[in-house]
Amino acid sequence: MRVNFNGKTQELWTLWREGVDVKLIDQRLLPHKLEILTLHSHCETADAIRDMAVRGAGAIGVAAGYGIAQAALEAKGMSLKDFQAFVSEAANTLQKTRPTAVNLFHAIDRCIKAASRGSVLERVASACAEADRIALDDLEASRKMGEYGNALLGDGCRILTHCNAGALAFIDNGSALAPIRVAHRSGKHIFVYADETRPRSQGAKLTAWELQQEGVPYALIVDNAAGYYMRRGEVDIVIVGADRIAANGDTANKIGTYEKAVLARENGLPFYVAAPTMTFDIKCPTGKGIEIEERNPDEVNWVFGVDEDDAFRRVRITAEGTTVLNPGFDVTPAKYITGFITDIGVLKPPFGRSIRDALRVRKDKVC
Amino acid sequence: MRVNFNGKTQELWTLWREGVDVKLIDQRLLPHKLEILTLHSHCETADAIRDMAVRGAGAIGVAAGYGIAQAALEAKGMSLKDFQAFVSEAANTLQKTRPTAVNLFHAIDRCIKAASRGSVLERVASACAEADRIALDDLEASRKMGEYGNALLGDGCRILTHCNAGALAFIDNGSALAPIRVAHRSGKHIFVYADETRPRSQGAKLTAWELQQEGVPYALIVDNAAGYYMRRGEVDIVIVGADRIAANGDTANKIGTYEKAVLARENGLPFYVAAPTMTFDIKCPTGKGIEIEERNPDEVNWVFGVDEDDAFRRVRITAEGTTVLNPGFDVTPAKYITGFITDIGVLKPPFGRSIRDALRVRKDKVC
Repeated sequence: MRVNFNGKTQELWTLWREGVDVKLIDQRLLPHKLEILTLHSHCETADAIRDMAVRGAGAIGVAAGYGIAQAALEAKGMSLKDFQAFVSEAANTLQKTRPTAVNLFHAIDRCIKAASRGSVLERVASACAEADRIALDDLEASRKMGEYGNALLGDGCRILTHCNAGALAFIDNGSALAPIRVAHRSGKHIFVYADETRPRSQGAKLTAWELQQEGVPYALIVDNAAGYYMRRGEVDIVIVGADRIAANGDTANKIGTYEKAVLARENGLPFYVAAPTMTFDIKCPTGKGIEIEERNPDEVNWVFGVDEDDAFRRVRITAEGTTVLNPGFDVTPAKYITGFITDIGVLKPPFGRSIRDALRVRKDKVC
Repeated sequence: MRVNFNGKTQELWTLWREGVDVKLIDQRLLPHKLEILTLHSHCETADAIRDMAVRGAGAIGVAAGYGIAQAALEAKGMSLKDFQAFVSEAANTLQKTRPTAVNLFHAIDRCIKAASRGSVLERVASACAEADRIALDDLEASRKMGEYGNALLGDGCRILTHCNAGALAFIDNGSALAPIRVAHRSGKHIFVYADETRPRSQGAKLTAWELQQEGVPYALIVDNAAGYYMRRGEVDIVIVGADRIAANGDTANKIGTYEKAVLARENGLPFYVAAPTMTFDIKCPTGKGIEIEERNPDEVNWVFGVDEDDAFRRVRITAEGTTVLNPGFDVTPAKYITGFITDIGVLKPPFGRSIRDALRVRKDKVC
């Protein structure tokens, strides 16, 4: 992604590996400060995932893979038995950081499997290579989503997005923001409405920041205003990301996504979900099988930011003892979704078939 | 409204008059502190309206009427000519405080008209009597809305509301919250979902506080979660307030109201607007004639609350230079509205006719 860092405009990834070190943009400080965190061990990487210095499905997966690579590097002088125990314990530590992140488990499995054959040094090399491969797969998926999605955006197009499905949720480019970046860099005049996305305000803190850094014309709006702009005819298309997509196309994503989908259909607007094919969970037949996480009420009660002196601080907006319900995600039924922008193309209804076909293509590519 | 004040549960109004003094709950400190502000002159009352120590259509109207009564009392020793000039100047000052508040102009007109005949002392008495009448009319309207709306709420009913159309927006009881209070006090088991209502979070700060004080079972939710609970079948009815209602029933209210209305219809739920008949603007044929105020971006960028030490403080959640669009209101087309809960009954479609009839009834009552 394009950012202004240390006084100059440059390209930066959300996270990368330098030998045993993992480096990443500390997302807890955004949008107020752009700082690169250096993680010297798999334990520090686990802490960074748990404390949400890195977040977003793709980025968490890559970080977890790097964590296994770090563990392997840390254990490279050990006996095979001790190496296996150490890496297995590291996998355990990393798995516990974000128990609902599917990409995290997937990445750890890939790296552990890669590190299961040969001598200790071969295993170290394989774990590192697999972790780097996960990162490259992530990059490639974002690049493809950007290309396929860009074809949907005409010159003058006004896009509404929810939450942060941007570069910061992956290694670079993002899912929902990837087509926006490609369209903008190709010279199209586009405009983006970024939903604030309470309670964690990833739209205000991350998406608005990414768009500002990239130079894409945009406006941050409160979640309540999305329907207002749709009804006024000032939105042409809605593109959001996804946390998990069932076999029939029902899509779990950040709370509020369902509201935008209903409003888009009511106003005759196309509603697209951008996600890499690995977000499809073919074992989950419909959205009914997706459990929704009830999150900490503090996310609603307290708001984090910087005060007048630029010091990080949180304020409580509610009375002590306020009763809060805080579902983290919702499920948008497939009937509201116009299509899925994936790394192997745009999937159209009937989704049962197009998703099945897409996953077959991916499997063929991987094998 | 029922509140816990100075350690005991008691009934309190949003504002009232004690001789030349106006007393009111300082809403800027809610929900963190319950403090009564004493305003000794019409200038202090104007400041309180401008600084939003008092807000909400009904309450602002009453405060402005009290302001004219204060001005008349301040000028009671003057010559008739000086009295007229003083009161006229006071009206001017009060009118400038919130230029889009219709009730404010209406209340000032009523009091000025009342103070336009007889001697100075007669004019003072008439201005005070008219201001007190406006307050009593407001009280009576809330009481009636509570009764009519309560008839719509069965035992076990789960109500969703947006923004604060509560006692704090009027003298007591409120519009959307009036039926909820009546139902609760009559022993019905009800449950209220209170939308946070970004950007000013009146749902989190005022509605949740009112419900907590009153002892009504409730949960505060972010605006993004309203659709989620509707789709899960956990909401039975939506009731909101209104800022202005056109002759055909199109309704301007706090930003986000339109979203809730669309979601209610999509989920087969009744959507009611509670408002006193004076909120109907028969001169405005449809919602197209209602101008929407673009408000200060700081409302989105900065969040106000108390820090860990209970000190009032604001934090910035966005990067410096973030582009923000901040429409204060939206218009919900009449087709999404099931009915209007008013002080003269529940109005049903076709609204063109039922609104016209209702305003005729009100006019007959006033004349």
